[in-house]
Amino acid sequence: MGSEDKIVDVNFESLLRIFTVPEAPDSTLGNIEQKLSQNLNQFLREHIVAEEKPLSEIEKDFADPAIPELPTFVSEHTQHLLETVVSHSVHTSAPSFIGHMTSALPYFLMPLSKIMIALNQNLVKIETSKAFTPLERQVLGMLHRLIYSQDDSFYQHWMHSAQHSLGAFCSGGTIANITALWVARNNALKADGDFQGVEKEGLFNAMMHYGYKGMAILVSERGHYSLKKAADVLGIGQQNLVAVKTDHNNRLCSIALEQKIQQLKTQGIKPFAIIGVAGTTETGNIDPLEKIAAIAQREQCHFHVDAAWGGATLMSNQHRYLLKGIELADSVTIDAHKQLYIPMGAGMVLFKDPSAMHSIEHHAEYILRKGSKDLGSHTLEGSRSGMAMLVYSSMHIISRPGYELLINESLKKARYFADLIKKQLDFELISEPELCLLTYRYVPQDTQRALQLATADELKTLHQYLNELTQFIQKSQRENGRSFVSRTRLTPEKWQRMETSVLRVVLANPLTTIEILHSIIEEQRIIAQTSPFVLPKIMQLTHIILDRDPIE
Amino acid sequence: MGSEDKIVDVNFESLLRIFTVPEAPDSTLGNIEQKLSQNLNQFLREHIVAEEKPLSEIEKDFADPAIPELPTFVSEHTQHLLETVVSHSVHTSAPSFIGHMTSALPYFLMPLSKIMIALNQNLVKIETSKAFTPLERQVLGMLHRLIYSQDDSFYQHWMHSAQHSLGAFCSGGTIANITALWVARNNALKADGDFQGVEKEGLFNAMMHYGYKGMAILVSERGHYSLKKAADVLGIGQQNLVAVKTDHNNRLCSIALEQKIQQLKTQGIKPFAIIGVAGTTETGNIDPLEKIAAIAQREQCHFHVDAAWGGATLMSNQHRYLLKGIELADSVTIDAHKQLYIPMGAGMVLFKDPSAMHSIEHHAEYILRKGSKDLGSHTLEGSRSGMAMLVYSSMHIISRPGYELLINESLKKARYFADLIKKQLDFELISEPELCLLTYRYVPQDTQRALQLATADELKTLHQYLNELTQFIQKSQRENGRSFVSRTRLTPEKWQRMETSVLRVVLANPLTTIEILHSIIEEQRIIAQTSPFVLPKIMQLTHIILDRDPIE
Repeated sequence: MGSEDKIVDVNFESLLRIFTVPEAPDSTLGNIEQKLSQNLNQFLREHIVAEEKPLSEIEKDFADPAIPELPTFVSEHTQHLLETVVSHSVHTSAPSFIGHMTSALPYFLMPLSKIMIALNQNLVKIETSKAFTPLERQVLGMLHRLIYSQDDSFYQHWMHSAQHSLGAFCSGGTIANITALWVARNNALKADGDFQGVEKEGLFNAMMHYGYKGMAILVSERGHYSLKKAADVLGIGQQNLVAVKTDHNNRLCSIALEQKIQQLKTQGIKPFAIIGVAGTTETGNIDPLEKIAAIAQREQCHFHVDAAWGGATLMSNQHRYLLKGIELADSVTIDAHKQLYIPMGAGMVLFKDPSAMHSIEHHAEYILRKGSKDLGSHTLEGSRSGMAMLVYSSMHIISRPGYELLINESLKKARYFADLIKKQLDFELISEPELCLLTYRYVPQDTQRALQLATADELKTLHQYLNELTQFIQKSQRENGRSFVSRTRLTPEKWQRMETSVLRVVLANPLTTIEILHSIIEEQRIIAQTSPFVLPKIMQLTHIILDRDPIE
Repeated sequence: MGSEDKIVDVNFESLLRIFTVPEAPDSTLGNIEQKLSQNLNQFLREHIVAEEKPLSEIEKDFADPAIPELPTFVSEHTQHLLETVVSHSVHTSAPSFIGHMTSALPYFLMPLSKIMIALNQNLVKIETSKAFTPLERQVLGMLHRLIYSQDDSFYQHWMHSAQHSLGAFCSGGTIANITALWVARNNALKADGDFQGVEKEGLFNAMMHYGYKGMAILVSERGHYSLKKAADVLGIGQQNLVAVKTDHNNRLCSIALEQKIQQLKTQGIKPFAIIGVAGTTETGNIDPLEKIAAIAQREQCHFHVDAAWGGATLMSNQHRYLLKGIELADSVTIDAHKQLYIPMGAGMVLFKDPSAMHSIEHHAEYILRKGSKDLGSHTLEGSRSGMAMLVYSSMHIISRPGYELLINESLKKARYFADLIKKQLDFELISEPELCLLTYRYVPQDTQRALQLATADELKTLHQYLNELTQFIQKSQRENGRSFVSRTRLTPEKWQRMETSVLRVVLANPLTTIEILHSIIEEQRIIAQTSPFVLPKIMQLTHIILDRDPIE
C-alpha cells in the first residue's frame, strides 16, 4: 500500500510515543509513582507544604489562559506539578485534618484505581463497559440490600433486569439527590388521560392538568444545600423547598412537618416529596425516619432519605438501629466517597421499587436501545467511569464486618472527643455526636459564667465576640498547617437560636489518634489565649458582667 | 492517658494496616501495577479475552447481592478481578476498536491519575482543594480562550474572579449540556418586577408571569440524546425539544429552523435556546454555526453549541475553520475525555459572558460562602475530583501543536478510509467524514445495481435485508473480538430517508494504522459473504430484479 508514509510523518511518530512508550521507572514520574506506592503519607507529608500560602499568591502560578504552544517534557512538567499543585493541595488524608468528610484511603485502592483508569470503560452502555455493567448492577444491588434487606429472589429477579434499575451510580450525593427528586417529580406528575406526563409535556402543562398552584419538597432546616439546587434545576423553585423546624438535636420536628404540609395544601400547593436527613452535614444528626415515613405514606409523598453521609452506618450491626426507618424510604442517597473510603466521585441513589425509575427512562437510536441493559438509560449523567469497581473491591477486601469496625471506632472516637471537650473548663460542646460528627467552641471559663448573668444586649454582644473568636481559632489553626477543623454556623436552642459559629469535626479517619485529639484542642486553647484582639474584648465584657453581679 | 487501648483493639489494628501499609511490590497487585506501567497494551491484550462471552454468562459472576461477611486477601481479590472483570471488559484503547469515542490514552496520564487519586481533593471548595481550584479555573480559562479568543486583560479580570465563572468542569457532556440549558432557562425567566425569577419561584409561576404557554429548545434532528434528558429534568418537557430538519450532510437547515421558530411563536411558545451541534455523535457533522448564531441573536435566544466531540478540533489551526461561528455561542460543551485524550469523566461547559452563571449561583452557610472562590457555587455537581489536573498536564505536555497533529492525522485517516470504501465495489459510503467520523455499509455489487432498478416495494424489502446484514456484520465482528466498529441508524436523503443501518467508525485513536483499516473491511466482507441467512435472501431478490430488467 505504501500510503502510510503520507499519513504518518516524523512529528506524528514522536507524538505516537506518548501513547506507546511508558515513562521509564527511573524518570521523575516513575520515581514519584514508586514513592506513592511505597509510602503515600510520607510523600504527601514531604510534598504538601504545611504553611498556608495566600490564594492570591497561588493564583499567580495559574494565570496564563493560553494553551502552551511548546510541549514540555514529562519530567519537567512533573517537577512543576510538585512545586505548584501538589505542594499547595490539601492533605485530606492527614490524621490531624479532621474538618472534612474526606479521609484516608485504603492503600489497595491506588493500584486498583490505576487499573480502572487504564481500562477506561464507559459505563453508559455495555458496548463500552461489558463486565463493568453487571458489576455496577451488583454494587447497586448490594447497597439496595443493605438498606432494604429484600430476599434473594428479589435480587435474582431485579438486579440484572433490562427494564429495571435498583438505582444509579453517579459522581456524588448532589446528582443522587437530584435524580431521586427528578424521579419523584415525574411520578407525581405522570401521564393521566390526555396528559402525557411531565417528562413529555413539561412542568407548566403538568400543573395545569393536575390543577396545582405549586409543587413542594419538605426537608429539615439542616438539609443539604444540594436540595436547593435540585429544586431550582427541576423547575420546582427554591422557595418551594420548604424548611421544617428542627429540635434541640437538629432533628426534624414531625409536628412542624405536618403543620407545613397542611399549610401548603390549603394554598393549593402539592407536597410531592419529603426528605429525611440521615447524617446532617453540619452535625451528623438523623431525622426521625419512621415518623416521617408514616407521614409521607399518609400524604402520598415520595419519601427520600439523604444518607450521603450516614448511610455507611448501615454497615454496623451495632449502630444501624440509628437509621431505623430508612428501609421505608422510596429512595436513598449514599456517598461511597465519604464513609465507605472510596476516592472522590462515587455517589449512589437507590430506589425501593425497581420500577420507580421508569419515569425518567430514556432511549436513543445508537445507544440505550430498548431492552438493552445499558445503565445509561437510567442515569442523569451520560458517559461515566468505572468507579463502581472500587466500591466492589472494597466491599470484598474490607467486607461488612471490616466496615463495621471502622464505623464503630469512628463513633467511639467521637464519643471520646465529646467527653474530652466536656471535661475542659474552657470549651463548650454545642452538638453531641450521634454519628462521628460533633461541634463545639472555645469559651473562657469566666465567660461561661458571665453568659449566665448577662443582660439580653450583653449576651448578644458576647455571643458576637465569641463567634469572632471561633473564626479566628479556626483560621489560625488552618494557617498553622498542623491540623484542621472546619467551622459552620448553627442556631442552638441553648443560645436562643442566635447564630453561633462553631468548630466542627468529622472523626472518620481511622488514623486519627486520641493524642491528636488532645493536641488539637490544646492548639486551639493556645490560639484563643494568645488572640490579640478578640479575647481581650471578651474578657473585658466578661469582667464587667461578673463584677456587677455580686451587687445585684 | 492509657485510654487508647479501649478504642483500638486488635482487629482494628489489623484493619488500620490497609490504610498504612502499601501493597508489597512483589504482591499480585504490585505486579499488575508494574505490568501496567511497563506495557499497558500488552497487559490489556493478555488479560482481556478476545472472544465474547454472553452477558448472561458474565452476570453469573455478579449475582450475589450480599456484602461479603468475610474479608478477602488483596491478592486473591486481584486475581478474581483479573478473571471476572478485566478479562471481560472492553479494550477501548485497542487500535482496531474504532467504534467508540474512547481511544488510547497517553502513558503519562496513568501515573498522573494516581497522584490525582492519592491527593483525593474535592473541588467543591477551596478548603478541600486549594491549588486545584485556581488550576481548574485556569483550565476553564484555556478552553474559554480556545473558543472565544478574548484578550489577556479579559482573562486577567475574570479567570479568578470570585463572583464569576467562565464555565464549569463536570463529569461529562450530558451534565455540561444540562448546565448550559439550566443557565439559559434561568436567564430567560429571570426576576422581573414582583416576580423573583424561576430559580426562586419555579417554572409554573415563571410562565404565568411571562405569559408563555411553553418554552422550547431547538436542535437538529441529529442532536444528542442528552438534550432530551435536559428538557425533561429542567421541566421544559421532551416535546418542547423541537427537532429541526437536516440537509443531506446531517446539518441543520437554517430555513427549517426559522420556520419552526415562527410556528412556536404563533403558538405562544417561547423559543429560549437554540443548539448548534459541532460534531454529531453519529456522523461527526457540524451545523452552520454562524447562521444559527444570527437567528439566535435576532430571536433573543440563548445559543448553545454542543461541541462535546468536535470542540477539540479548535486545537487545529488547519481545521478550526470548520467550527466557524462557535465564538458567537453563549455557551459551549466540550468533552476532554473524547478527543483531548483524557480518561473518562472530564466534561466542560464554557460561557462567553462571565456573568451568565449568576442565574444558577448558590451559597450555603458552611460552604460556598459569598465572595469565596469556591467552584461549587457554579456547578450542578457538588463534590468533584481533581480531573482538571489531567487536562492541565496534557495541555502542557502535548501542547496545542501536539493536539493539532493528533486532530489533523485523525481527519486525514478518516478521509483515507472514506476513499478506501469508495474504491470497494461492494461497500457504500453513507456519510462523508467532516471530522474523523464516517458511516458506510456493505452492499453486494449486484445489489447496488438492483437498488437502482427496484420497484418501491422491492427497494423497501431490499433495504430491510441490508439493514439485517449490516447488523449481522457488526455483531459478528464484535463477537470475533479482533476489531470493533459501531452501528447506528440514519435516514439518508439518497435512500428517500428510509431507516438505514450503517457501520460507524471514529478514527481518533492515533495507533490505528492503515493496515488495520484495510483488514477491518476485509473482515466485514468475509462475514457478509459467509452470512448464512441474510446474504442469500439479498442475492435472491437482487437476481429477481436484475433478471427482470433486460426484459423491461
